[in-house]
Amino acid sequence: MLKGAITIQANNLYDIKSVLTQIEQVSQFSQDNAGITRLAFTPADYQARNYIISLMQTSGLTVHIDAIGNIIGRFVPEGTDSSPAVATGSHLDTVPSGGKYDGVLGIVCGLAAINRLKSQSDIRHPLEVIVFAAKESSRFNLPTIGSKAMAGLVTAATLNAIKDQDGIALAAELAAIGFQTKQISTASRSKNSIKGFVELHIEQGQVLEQGRIRIGIVDKVSAPTRLKITVRGTAGHSSVAPIEERQDALVSAAMIILAVRNIAAEYEYQGTVATVTILKTYPGSINVIPGQVEMWVDIRGTEHESVIEILQEIKDAVSSIADDYNTPVAIEVLSSEKPILLDDTINQIMEAACCKLKQTSVRLDSRVSHDAMNIAHIAPAGVLLIPCKDGISYNACQEAAPEDIAAGLDVLTEILYQLAK
Amino acid sequence: MLKGAITIQANNLYDIKSVLTQIEQVSQFSQDNAGITRLAFTPADYQARNYIISLMQTSGLTVHIDAIGNIIGRFVPEGTDSSPAVATGSHLDTVPSGGKYDGVLGIVCGLAAINRLKSQSDIRHPLEVIVFAAKESSRFNLPTIGSKAMAGLVTAATLNAIKDQDGIALAAELAAIGFQTKQISTASRSKNSIKGFVELHIEQGQVLEQGRIRIGIVDKVSAPTRLKITVRGTAGHSSVAPIEERQDALVSAAMIILAVRNIAAEYEYQGTVATVTILKTYPGSINVIPGQVEMWVDIRGTEHESVIEILQEIKDAVSSIADDYNTPVAIEVLSSEKPILLDDTINQIMEAACCKLKQTSVRLDSRVSHDAMNIAHIAPAGVLLIPCKDGISYNACQEAAPEDIAAGLDVLTEILYQLAK
Repeated sequence: MLKGAITIQANNLYDIKSVLTQIEQVSQFSQDNAGITRLAFTPADYQARNYIISLMQTSGLTVHIDAIGNIIGRFVPEGTDSSPAVATGSHLDTVPSGGKYDGVLGIVCGLAAINRLKSQSDIRHPLEVIVFAAKESSRFNLPTIGSKAMAGLVTAATLNAIKDQDGIALAAELAAIGFQTKQISTASRSKNSIKGFVELHIEQGQVLEQGRIRIGIVDKVSAPTRLKITVRGTAGHSSVAPIEERQDALVSAAMIILAVRNIAAEYEYQGTVATVTILKTYPGSINVIPGQVEMWVDIRGTEHESVIEILQEIKDAVSSIADDYNTPVAIEVLSSEKPILLDDTINQIMEAACCKLKQTSVRLDSRVSHDAMNIAHIAPAGVLLIPCKDGISYNACQEAAPEDIAAGLDVLTEILYQLAK
Repeated sequence: MLKGAITIQANNLYDIKSVLTQIEQVSQFSQDNAGITRLAFTPADYQARNYIISLMQTSGLTVHIDAIGNIIGRFVPEGTDSSPAVATGSHLDTVPSGGKYDGVLGIVCGLAAINRLKSQSDIRHPLEVIVFAAKESSRFNLPTIGSKAMAGLVTAATLNAIKDQDGIALAAELAAIGFQTKQISTASRSKNSIKGFVELHIEQGQVLEQGRIRIGIVDKVSAPTRLKITVRGTAGHSSVAPIEERQDALVSAAMIILAVRNIAAEYEYQGTVATVTILKTYPGSINVIPGQVEMWVDIRGTEHESVIEILQEIKDAVSSIADDYNTPVAIEVLSSEKPILLDDTINQIMEAACCKLKQTSVRLDSRVSHDAMNIAHIAPAGVLLIPCKDGISYNACQEAAPEDIAAGLDVLTEILYQLAK
């Protein structure tokens, strides 16, 4: 019987101290020393993956790696093999110079929760902790690739077209671990293979911290809409005058950055924001007026209508800047996915778990993508958030308090138990 | 006797047709197909250098390469070896995606002029055409390295600190052609080794074209003042709101770009402009608010006072933006050289040559750096400009009309003759 009283054994794979140690351990696997940089399928990512695989094996889980590189650690109580699984998990890859809790938290807590539940006699479903491959879009420009594949949302043709900034194909990385993209359908799971999925994650916002609330329960997850804007000017020697007659692509780009920022400030009350996140100047020589600028815009909103509107406003502003400064602009919509409504039944179970464990909770929407939004296509899925310090994420300063992590682990364990019993 | 009547021999190394063919030939040596990219000491640069060396040898010039890689082609009329040289020349390296006339024009016309003068019996000085190494700052961030070394303006310590963006040391490139930076003083020439130096170049502006004037005679050359501005914000997930509370380094950078542009528009009547030419975003991930931006500013002015003033205005604007948006900014002055006054006696000879050959001319200032500005420290030096189409430079569309090139060659030949006879 669980009843708010899973025995926590010190120095064991499922106590909070071990969880914190494991988070520290994974944070050592980084491509550099500026925060944590562990892009998908890099050596640092494989180090982290192998470490987690060894933890799974030590915990007695069977480990399966699917055709997109998702790692599935599975504990099957006797006689439950044909039942749908109760699953949890998150990702190990990071953005460049990211933080140590993002993704990792959900994996080590998921493993700890399963370890706590292993000895429960009334578990009637297999328990799984899943490491989703290539969640961040930092390397391959497409987010949540692993969970998309598991939900059957990505084709071999799409995968074959994906390359990183150095021109290295995703297909080549998969081939290196023995998979061919044409096998991708083997990674997808049927709608009755998972009874429920819950992902524990840090908030990456300040709703919980400012409201002094321990647990966030996500109603809706925004999927990003992404644009690539190319501004064409005329390169010339940096001494060229008059300034008014220049077609300086970077000056137009600056106007666009400020326009996007002002439009975002207007729309944020609707839960929608937009950000210019990357900018590149060409030819990139210290004495040459920029002849071309490429910039990437990330739009996040939990209301699809609002995303459509902000996109139109950005397009209008960009085209007016292009005309005013005689610098033609091309806008390419790289991706545009609708916000995902998560499962209300799961959310009620999450609320009940918080109540039972006397943890404050709140329902909220998330502008941050999570793998759960893809799994929601094949199973009831939920996202459980704990506070992060100052809302800082994607930054080496990312912090989560041990007491919040402990609370998150307890609530996650209770939820998985309620789903699995 | 010269007297406006040097015989032009068809299909010879010094006719205008050959000059145009040689310019085309050098334009084939490029690292890529987007304009001409021939950064200093790259294989494309060596191809161009070797081609010019072979032309020098065919013309009977002795070829010497100095310790910084400058190529000196020298013709010594009998009995003149101990006299100071009359020299011309320019550079072969380009900015990325540059044009085919920039630099090359001055070398092939210089060679053609010497070929024309070789048979004159009244030449009393050695004639030299010089290929200055690494004129553009595109690769090593320092402009006119070759002519600085020839004028004794650069030390071994400075050279040893220079690396390109890939971390390749200039010293390593020099070592590859057999030179050590500690030998650099052997590249410097004494004040009595050159009687006069004239560089023929395209204008890279529109004064000549708009005034329908054939020849520009430069009074003063601006040396660039260069800044690196680093804006520090706070990286975070691109969903973070409120927008007002973000410390988005790219938004502050956009403000700075526009401030620099507006300040430049105010100052251009003084002959001073400023341009943000390169910008880099960090961490450079599509879903992360830029936590840091690096930007490079190039300031050009022919009046030192005006450069000092614009620099102060930029610093004030940057610091006010840093305060307003809570994004600390560091400004590093990478280089700051005073404008160089060229030699008035040389300029009078240039004017007289234009008169004699019935070519229109005008005195003007140049915001573009030329190797002549360094040679001016050790010898009377001048810069002769011909029009370029639409003032376009540092761009694949760079064009110079054959009749302007022919006029430039004729005037250059006459000037060298007047100096050497």
